[in-house]
Amino acid sequence: MHNVRPLPQYLVSRFHGWRATSYEDNSAWYRRLAQEGQHPRAMVISCCDSRVHVTGIFGADTGEFFIHRNIANLVPPYAPDGHQHGTSAAIEYAVNTLKVAHLIVVGHTNCGGVAGCHAMCSGHAPELEEKTSFVGRWMDILRPGYEHVKDLPEGEQIPALERQAVLVSIKNLLTFPFVRSAVESGNMSLHGLVHDIGEGKLVQAEDGGRRWVEV
Amino acid sequence: MHNVRPLPQYLVSRFHGWRATSYEDNSAWYRRLAQEGQHPRAMVISCCDSRVHVTGIFGADTGEFFIHRNIANLVPPYAPDGHQHGTSAAIEYAVNTLKVAHLIVVGHTNCGGVAGCHAMCSGHAPELEEKTSFVGRWMDILRPGYEHVKDLPEGEQIPALERQAVLVSIKNLLTFPFVRSAVESGNMSLHGLVHDIGEGKLVQAEDGGRRWVEV
Amino acid sequence: MHNVRPLPQYLVSRFHGWRATSYEDNSAWYRRLAQEGQHPRAMVISCCDSRVHVTGIFGADTGEFFIHRNIANLVPPYAPDGHQHGTSAAIEYAVNTLKVAHLIVVGHTNCGGVAGCHAMCSGHAPELEEKTSFVGRWMDILRPGYEHVKDLPEGEQIPALERQAVLVSIKNLLTFPFVRSAVESGNMSLHGLVHDIGEGKLVQAEDGGRRWVEV
Amino acid sequence: MHNVRPLPQYLVSRFHGWRATSYEDNSAWYRRLAQEGQHPRAMVISCCDSRVHVTGIFGADTGEFFIHRNIANLVPPYAPDGHQHGTSAAIEYAVNTLKVAHLIVVGHTNCGGVAGCHAMCSGHAPELEEKTSFVGRWMDILRPGYEHVKDLPEGEQIPALERQAVLVSIKNLLTFPFVRSAVESGNMSLHGLVHDIGEGKLVQAEDGGRRWVEV
Repeated sequence: MHNVRPLPQYLVSRFHGWRATSYEDNSAWYRRLAQEGQHPRAMVISCCDSRVHVTGIFGADTGEFFIHRNIANLVPPYAPDGHQHGTSAAIEYAVNTLKVAHLIVVGHTNCGGVAGCHAMCSGHAPELEEKTSFVGRWMDILRPGYEHVKDLPEGEQIPALERQAVLVSIKNLLTFPFVRSAVESGNMSLHGLVHDIGEGKLVQAEDGGRRWVEV
Repeated sequence: MHNVRPLPQYLVSRFHGWRATSYEDNSAWYRRLAQEGQHPRAMVISCCDSRVHVTGIFGADTGEFFIHRNIANLVPPYAPDGHQHGTSAAIEYAVNTLKVAHLIVVGHTNCGGVAGCHAMCSGHAPELEEKTSFVGRWMDILRPGYEHVKDLPEGEQIPALERQAVLVSIKNLLTFPFVRSAVESGNMSLHGLVHDIGEGKLVQAEDGGRRWVEV
Repeated sequence: MHNVRPLPQYLVSRFHGWRATSYEDNSAWYRRLAQEGQHPRAMVISCCDSRVHVTGIFGADTGEFFIHRNIANLVPPYAPDGHQHGTSAAIEYAVNTLKVAHLIVVGHTNCGGVAGCHAMCSGHAPELEEKTSFVGRWMDILRPGYEHVKDLPEGEQIPALERQAVLVSIKNLLTFPFVRSAVESGNMSLHGLVHDIGEGKLVQAEDGGRRWVEV
Repeated sequence: MHNVRPLPQYLVSRFHGWRATSYEDNSAWYRRLAQEGQHPRAMVISCCDSRVHVTGIFGADTGEFFIHRNIANLVPPYAPDGHQHGTSAAIEYAVNTLKVAHLIVVGHTNCGGVAGCHAMCSGHAPELEEKTSFVGRWMDILRPGYEHVKDLPEGEQIPALERQAVLVSIKNLLTFPFVRSAVESGNMSLHGLVHDIGEGKLVQAEDGGRRWVEV
């Protein structure tokens, strides 16, 4: 713990700049958010990737989105086994406690996690098959998606697997009883998107994922 | 999967606004990010809470921060047991593949997850003790932190536990061999912060967490 | 060469201070920058003037901006004549080797170079017309800009010429085939700014320089 | 000129942050700098490289350093031929108009320009020998330095050439009559430094460049 260091100065300067502008101009809103707690209207599950910030592309204000970010925006299947499941905990909190109205899974192009999964499943990344590979074991969630893309022409497999990362996650979401119940009662809707980083486009799943349409 | 719905219109409209402005003005940068891949300088671990967006408070551009967000910004201890560990996968990818220079844990005030942990540990939330409670099992990570705060005056316990969420996570980070190795070789530094949502302030851990100082 | 002297002590002291703080806290980042090379997202062309440091006003970290500074932030026209062109070399390196996404020309108020150019062009500085005046010959680049301002009311001519220094430079930038190609392919965007030193304001060119708008 | 675009939003936000903090806290100083003009105590010639910002390593305030930055921090020999010499113009202005007390040439390790010069001079970069290569022609300034290093063991040549970039520049500076005169009259001193990016160290030339000593 002697390893904890002070923040780099440029981040300190930028924080002071934020405080003197965005915070000062909105301190009433921030104080109200602190006192009343959050009431976000949506949960977003997106990738840790530094090129995908959903607050930017959706112009989200503080307080709007409850955001869980993990490698490749994946949701594991429901498994109430008493172990630690960070993604499942975030979903449980969003649905049962915050009662969000939308649950949006946002995938993206050029995803390093998906590319790693493709390499692993096609036999080109034995190191990811090791029991000790956290990334490999995490990407196991996407293995069922690889089955849907492995017979496509080679250049189409990874883009298709990026969409599978969204579809597999939505399918797994529906294995959580409280998610299914919220969806079926009409209290929450599910949405699946893939963001194209280079072209700045967004496609969404329609017909249960059989079609992807640009928004 | 018939449950997937189109995105609400206000989000579509905002996305089109983003595309016509931020994307158009920076398309060269986005294309380069897509072609060359990401080279973020820091990984940030923060809470899913909708009131804490680190890209805002640090004026971060697309491509700067690799961000993992989970309930209460927690890191579990190193456990290469072959199970799915989303947080550990994100850390492994950031440290070993992206080789980030900074790993920053950002806690915050008014954290619902920390409050739940406090209620659970002090015997006021039996439902969180259930084996099937994902939030409860996730918050087990912070139990050792409760031991450090339980004898404080009542009003100080929760703020102290919010700081413990950062310190326990940093302590757990150092149980990952690749994190320890990167820190000890000087290739990565660790930082611990707590963001005060209502007051717009930021404190950072010094002296291994014995002191917290406003930046 | 016997004239080379040790650094003044106050600069040595400050350097040691920087090393013990900023460097120590960020040594991981500096080492990575040394090992992997620079990947700046933008080139900035600004004036040598001691009152204009773009890293400050834009909170830029080490590694973000590739910065060329000369008198009056000028770019000469494309001239592949085999002579030494320091500005053209910097632009060539930024665009062709570093592939920056943004090229930003930053002018400023109270510019001594621009004032000298105005004096020269209006017949009040014959010494700058001498063949041996390096400043005079350098400011020749801005002569076409004087034509656009010479009929304005006297008090408006120098501020207008400061903006012309940015516009003439951008016009000249577009005479470089590799700049034009990067801009037309959408791989790089051009930006023109004037920084008001005394008032701390920033205006940017819009509509190809017909309007200047405060950011 | 229709190609000029608005500044990316993250830079606008950071500028507003700077304005609300650094500028507001120092507006009296900025206004005085605008009204009285600059009186920098030193001119610094350094590289455009995004990893070398001398205002950072020397904790320089606005108004302290008049900074010229070009590829590889080079000064060409005195050549009053009526052509455009941006570096010579900056030196003339600093010495004759601003009358700086120090002229400091700051080289650095891992310099892309120096590496290119080494490749060119050792016959490994024919493209840099082209008449139309601005970088190649600019690096011609450093050719005499290559003669001093070409017989060293291979691994020592580039670091030695980085130091030669400083020494050749200082030698060329002394071919400018007004520089020589200011130095010989004791009104200005010359300094030569090389900054080690990865290790955060600074060495300075002593004994006319025969020795380099850590400051």
